[in-house]
Amino acid sequence: MELKGTSFIGSKRGAAGLTSFAAVNPASGDELGPKYFSASVDEVDTAAQLAADAFASFSRTSGKQRAAFLRRVADGLDAAKDTLAARANLETALPMPRLLGETGRTSGQLRLFAGVVEEGSWVNARIDPALPERTPLPRPDLRSMLRPLGPVAVFGASNFPLAFSVAGGDTASALAAGCPVVVKAHPAHPGTSELVAEILANAVKAEGFHEGVFSMVFDIGIEAGAALVTHPAIKAVAFTGSLKGGRALMDLAAGRPDPIPCFTEMSSGNPVFILPGALKKGPTELAKGLFGSFTLGAGQFCTKPGIVLTAEQPETAAFMAELKSLTEQAQPFTLLTKGIARAYDSGTRGRGEITPLTADAGVAVSEYQAGAKIFSATVDEFVAEPELAEEIFGPDTLLVACKSTDEYMRAAQSLEGHLTATIFGTDEDLAAHAELLHVLEQKAGRLIFNGFPTGVEVCHAMVHGGPYPSTSDARFTSVGSLAIYRFARPVCFQGFPQAMLPDELKDGNPLRIRRLVDGKAE
Amino acid sequence: MELKGTSFIGSKRGAAGLTSFAAVNPASGDELGPKYFSASVDEVDTAAQLAADAFASFSRTSGKQRAAFLRRVADGLDAAKDTLAARANLETALPMPRLLGETGRTSGQLRLFAGVVEEGSWVNARIDPALPERTPLPRPDLRSMLRPLGPVAVFGASNFPLAFSVAGGDTASALAAGCPVVVKAHPAHPGTSELVAEILANAVKAEGFHEGVFSMVFDIGIEAGAALVTHPAIKAVAFTGSLKGGRALMDLAAGRPDPIPCFTEMSSGNPVFILPGALKKGPTELAKGLFGSFTLGAGQFCTKPGIVLTAEQPETAAFMAELKSLTEQAQPFTLLTKGIARAYDSGTRGRGEITPLTADAGVAVSEYQAGAKIFSATVDEFVAEPELAEEIFGPDTLLVACKSTDEYMRAAQSLEGHLTATIFGTDEDLAAHAELLHVLEQKAGRLIFNGFPTGVEVCHAMVHGGPYPSTSDARFTSVGSLAIYRFARPVCFQGFPQAMLPDELKDGNPLRIRRLVDGKAE
Repeated sequence: MELKGTSFIGSKRGAAGLTSFAAVNPASGDELGPKYFSASVDEVDTAAQLAADAFASFSRTSGKQRAAFLRRVADGLDAAKDTLAARANLETALPMPRLLGETGRTSGQLRLFAGVVEEGSWVNARIDPALPERTPLPRPDLRSMLRPLGPVAVFGASNFPLAFSVAGGDTASALAAGCPVVVKAHPAHPGTSELVAEILANAVKAEGFHEGVFSMVFDIGIEAGAALVTHPAIKAVAFTGSLKGGRALMDLAAGRPDPIPCFTEMSSGNPVFILPGALKKGPTELAKGLFGSFTLGAGQFCTKPGIVLTAEQPETAAFMAELKSLTEQAQPFTLLTKGIARAYDSGTRGRGEITPLTADAGVAVSEYQAGAKIFSATVDEFVAEPELAEEIFGPDTLLVACKSTDEYMRAAQSLEGHLTATIFGTDEDLAAHAELLHVLEQKAGRLIFNGFPTGVEVCHAMVHGGPYPSTSDARFTSVGSLAIYRFARPVCFQGFPQAMLPDELKDGNPLRIRRLVDGKAE
Repeated sequence: MELKGTSFIGSKRGAAGLTSFAAVNPASGDELGPKYFSASVDEVDTAAQLAADAFASFSRTSGKQRAAFLRRVADGLDAAKDTLAARANLETALPMPRLLGETGRTSGQLRLFAGVVEEGSWVNARIDPALPERTPLPRPDLRSMLRPLGPVAVFGASNFPLAFSVAGGDTASALAAGCPVVVKAHPAHPGTSELVAEILANAVKAEGFHEGVFSMVFDIGIEAGAALVTHPAIKAVAFTGSLKGGRALMDLAAGRPDPIPCFTEMSSGNPVFILPGALKKGPTELAKGLFGSFTLGAGQFCTKPGIVLTAEQPETAAFMAELKSLTEQAQPFTLLTKGIARAYDSGTRGRGEITPLTADAGVAVSEYQAGAKIFSATVDEFVAEPELAEEIFGPDTLLVACKSTDEYMRAAQSLEGHLTATIFGTDEDLAAHAELLHVLEQKAGRLIFNGFPTGVEVCHAMVHGGPYPSTSDARFTSVGSLAIYRFARPVCFQGFPQAMLPDELKDGNPLRIRRLVDGKAE
């Protein structure tokens, strides 16, 4: 397929606008063709309006119909995986095996949601039958289930050009719920975005759905995104990216005449608490694992362990030595964009003014590259300087030396919200730190024991969320099948005849889903 | 028990502050003793801090423990029901039978949530067991469940001095979830609030819980409420009241350095669509029912039918005649406060400048009273004047004459969000208006067929929510067992030993709750 560089406004392509931009290969610094044209505000308006038009029919498709659609998209991604990974590799410098794997993860996510909506129980159907003889007042027949919210604006993330982008988890879960989607493509991988959008648009057509079920707008600036989030037809927002960007969208969504739900996944230091037993067991292994985790994807993972709390004990030296050696020998990492590289540079410089740089790859880097770095601080410094807990995107981490259980607790209590919090240790360590675990539970969406936070399994029990500033709303997740609940609302039907009820709520349970009847599982 | 007029700051009582106010009997205009003292910002801070302290232990109580606590509060309310209703009657002028019934509803709500958390399945436990042999990567053991959000600020509503106030649905669902509560008492019924708070505080003590599990602050102004919503220790807000008040709290919550969930139930016109068959069947009965519904509780129900769309047909005259006659013969209604009476007066005057007043009780009213009124408009006027769809609190309604199915649809499409939308008609009418039903589904949280919207059943399938401006977030409800989901967030445990997992997530399912294992019901 030939790349055109224009937005997807339903089944039509956008016009070649006045502003244009190009993808850049971060490995070479070279521009990649074609030119990409920013969507006009009129095009955004048309896309949002088409999404609202599509909602009338798409919201009434069955779970089976939407499952077939999602599987068609998944099949399309799988069939195009070499093309997708090759273009993504050019645009992101992420390695091919990772990108091929990510394509599989993306189609896997779509199939996970296909399974969820095909099975159908996710709608949380509840039936409280009429009690006509009840005194003093009879009870009417009441039945409720989840229904889609409306058109959703999805913002592609830069760091997962497939799994958190055009057909990523946000889009998959919104479409699964029955919500049309308008994607704001991330300008760092427009070609990958266009390839995926073509697969989505073709699937919409092949299923015979309204063209407004999927649109995608390009923009190098912030106008198109802002226009989307404030558009009356848009009923929810999903975003993965920076704290600054995410908070700006939250504020736009909250400031609308009619505020709408806005789920943003933004910033996380993913603290790792290394308890004494873990260091005793294998300090070198632990250092290797930690280095691998904080530099995975060049440190551009939402779950990068950016804060590591270690014990002071005999084995600490071996742990530190290994970590130092790995860091100092590390080749430069190529980051996704020049902007990220610049932010890493200024972020690590700033950190260096607060606290010592303990290990530094010290390599010469291009304007797209970064060297691995490790900073160190005491607990007192960590607690006193909130800046030390802030996420720096890229291959660095901060070690905080803890002298006692009390110091672990103080560090934990000072934390803001994170996506994950990890404890390494023996079972005895963990049992001895039950209070620490309890504090961490209030700070993170996922607690990990003896594992690194990078690597987010896509499954039913996953929570990729957490208190602010890791996300806008700790009650939701953007990964795993629970992610669908961001885009649905309960609707209660009172006193309706059987024929006019959705199948999910009919007597006899024709869809054979799990339901709650009079508060009891049917 | 002697009323003291001071706030409940954990187990202590607040100081007699500088500002004070008194309850007023709206039936007589007389002040009621004692003096009530507004809490200081320091007292609010202490209450919030105590709630945060209490969270450490209260969030770890079992469902059974919280159920016992909620039932103790319910028993306390039932035992005091005559005292409660008598004081509430003085403070609100609502009739005794209604207030005795409302006490029963309030204790019933507490028992509903007791049942939910005692049974335990509400936590949505999910287990994806480890797959150590999976390639290319093994899957870790992942288990998730809902855990409480943290301390919740609850704002008592004026119109249900028991069921939506101190121990009402918001408090019951927050406590059930494991969240300590700080109530901002509504100044229109401080004595009732104090009596109920005493029952709650005693139950906290009797159960041996941390005193910070419940606090309540009085304030005649907005300072204490604003201090609560912006307090770092407060993690969620629940409010029932006016659009202006609710939006102010939403903006405060969204503007925090760390925005928090804020569920506000605010404003609803509760449109009622009367289709031709309903008028044909019994125009007089329908008029009687409608009059009863829009004047129930002096029209001070969140679900008052404030917008009625009627067909033009031969039976319309009889319907109108009955409605007019009932309205014109109605005695004056005593409202809850002078402020509500004033707002009703200015709201209905303003409406009269836009559209004709069709029926008016025309009674002499005191400054706490209001006369029933009916306004009329065409669909064109209704669609052109958004003000006509705005809620006026009190005994009035607006009739909109629809000449065709198309006019019903235009009216429906112009609606903002409402708590309810009702259709009256035959089954054939309903089937012929499937599109209307679909539009209404997008506008309201509860759809009613052949019933009036007033009267909100407290059960599992109830949805007392809806798109903005009826609430701040259509994904939640403030009535029914689903209301608990406002106050909980999923937490995932990865790789934890059995001993350190919550019972809800342990192998063998010791609590015998419904769980999802590998995506399948256990």
